[in-house]
Amino acid sequence: MILVVALNPALDITHQVECVDWAGVNRPASVQAVPGGKGVNVARTLHALGTDVLLLVMAGGSTGDDIRLSLVAAGVPSVFTEIAGSTRRTFAVLDTKRNQVALFNEPGPTITAAEYARFQDTFHEALVSCDAVILSGSLPAGMPASTYADLIRAAATNRIPSFLDTSGDALRCGVAARPTLVKPNHGELGLAVGRVVPWAGRADLPAVVEAAHELRARGPEAVVVSLGEAGLLAVTADGCWLAVPEAVTGNPTGAGDAVVAGLAHGHVLGRSWPERLRNAAALGAATAAAATAGEFAHTDYVRALDGVEVTDLGRL
Amino acid sequence: MILVVALNPALDITHQVECVDWAGVNRPASVQAVPGGKGVNVARTLHALGTDVLLLVMAGGSTGDDIRLSLVAAGVPSVFTEIAGSTRRTFAVLDTKRNQVALFNEPGPTITAAEYARFQDTFHEALVSCDAVILSGSLPAGMPASTYADLIRAAATNRIPSFLDTSGDALRCGVAARPTLVKPNHGELGLAVGRVVPWAGRADLPAVVEAAHELRARGPEAVVVSLGEAGLLAVTADGCWLAVPEAVTGNPTGAGDAVVAGLAHGHVLGRSWPERLRNAAALGAATAAAATAGEFAHTDYVRALDGVEVTDLGRL
Repeated sequence: MILVVALNPALDITHQVECVDWAGVNRPASVQAVPGGKGVNVARTLHALGTDVLLLVMAGGSTGDDIRLSLVAAGVPSVFTEIAGSTRRTFAVLDTKRNQVALFNEPGPTITAAEYARFQDTFHEALVSCDAVILSGSLPAGMPASTYADLIRAAATNRIPSFLDTSGDALRCGVAARPTLVKPNHGELGLAVGRVVPWAGRADLPAVVEAAHELRARGPEAVVVSLGEAGLLAVTADGCWLAVPEAVTGNPTGAGDAVVAGLAHGHVLGRSWPERLRNAAALGAATAAAATAGEFAHTDYVRALDGVEVTDLGRL
Repeated sequence: MILVVALNPALDITHQVECVDWAGVNRPASVQAVPGGKGVNVARTLHALGTDVLLLVMAGGSTGDDIRLSLVAAGVPSVFTEIAGSTRRTFAVLDTKRNQVALFNEPGPTITAAEYARFQDTFHEALVSCDAVILSGSLPAGMPASTYADLIRAAATNRIPSFLDTSGDALRCGVAARPTLVKPNHGELGLAVGRVVPWAGRADLPAVVEAAHELRARGPEAVVVSLGEAGLLAVTADGCWLAVPEAVTGNPTGAGDAVVAGLAHGHVLGRSWPERLRNAAALGAATAAAATAGEFAHTDYVRALDGVEVTDLGRL
């Protein structure tokens, strides 16, 4: 079983409007509200893959209720730690004529020490019977930057591999706790190593590889950098690879979460690095092609698998 | 006690953003979620006036839960008829730099015949002990245009005065049921009489008076037309008046609902038409000055009362 942690989930609301009047009244043609946030997306992807998954969520308020009901309806096994605050919303306005999205991210609730202590009890209980832990997304207000680092160390104590996908201080602290893998995107990688890493395309790959090595030297066993359409760069103890999907079109939201799900899944299955990366890149491409984060069409996934080109970059 | 009907309430969410990026990610500086919709606003205004009020709401889903909790917290006496669908949200993005508001109104749930039958039981039970009924706002999907007309007739059977504030077919049908008062704005008046009524300012007043007379001839005892900054025009059996507040600045959302609350309140108190209109116009101005629909500062209200100029237009 793969354990997924969602400390700061969201209710993702999307309004489709044909041509938005930014100074007037709009009547959306369609309204969608789905559970979101990175951890929730990862768990939904793993569940759609048929993997045994358990999602640990901290949530509260009526938005938290909506998330709980949707996850139950989707059959994603979840354990909720109730909080006093209200789970945040994200609000996306998709202008279908201009093909443009405006996103409004609410700040989200503050977590109390007592609430986090209750979450930790749940986490330690679930840790005993899991094969991997995925820690994904930003930390809610009130939680120290060391939060993920602590969970990574608890996993390591139980010999459980850990996968970290976050940014800023939470990533910097987490890296030092020596997780199995971190998956920054290009911008998060630069912030983590504390300097600008150039990325205008394939020609800048050596600089990205260098920064990934630098990040890996600070703790994680493997660093996988997501580079959008340019694919995934993996820097590991066994070598370096680049996995490029054939074509990525659609909505990139959630594609990175699908990649994390694919990487952890491949690890648990004992796949080789090239196969792990192929599956993760294909999952990302299939998720980008779907309308909703955390969802993908299996036909898109299977088709994308054939299209991924994996290049062995050697021991750089 | 004044009975207020809210068949199609909303959870009104407002994001304040300093300078909106309509094609990117925004982090609102403040997030507000309050119970809204015209009927809810009217009831909150009456409650703030210290009037004995009972709000009848049809609501469902987690947004319905939010509305219920907020009304309980605000101490507004309410009876809920639970529906299977989810109460709609309205979403306002206030660009504080451009001083511009984009509003996104969700369509809202469809009401079943069985749900409305349960609402009617509640309505008839409350009708017995009330002094006036206010019917405010649009009808939810699935409800016939005759809905308000039926409620008005039920009130009349019990000799209860009724106040109607809606638009389109619901207004046209409602008018024929002979309510005590209807309060269209200028645009709703034109739609109700089936022709364009000019309104570019005070010079067009005779045309508005004529249309109001025409609407009154179709059933209601009084027609009060809200004309924004130009005030309120009343066409009644006792005469015609124009009530103009000194200055109306701020957020016009909910000002019309405060006017309806003031008109019903004045009727129940037995105020003369000029005093009724003075109070209603002042409530509208004070509500426009407040940040949230359904709320006003009593000092603004008292100050606005002095500033309202009421002109007797005679028996036109």
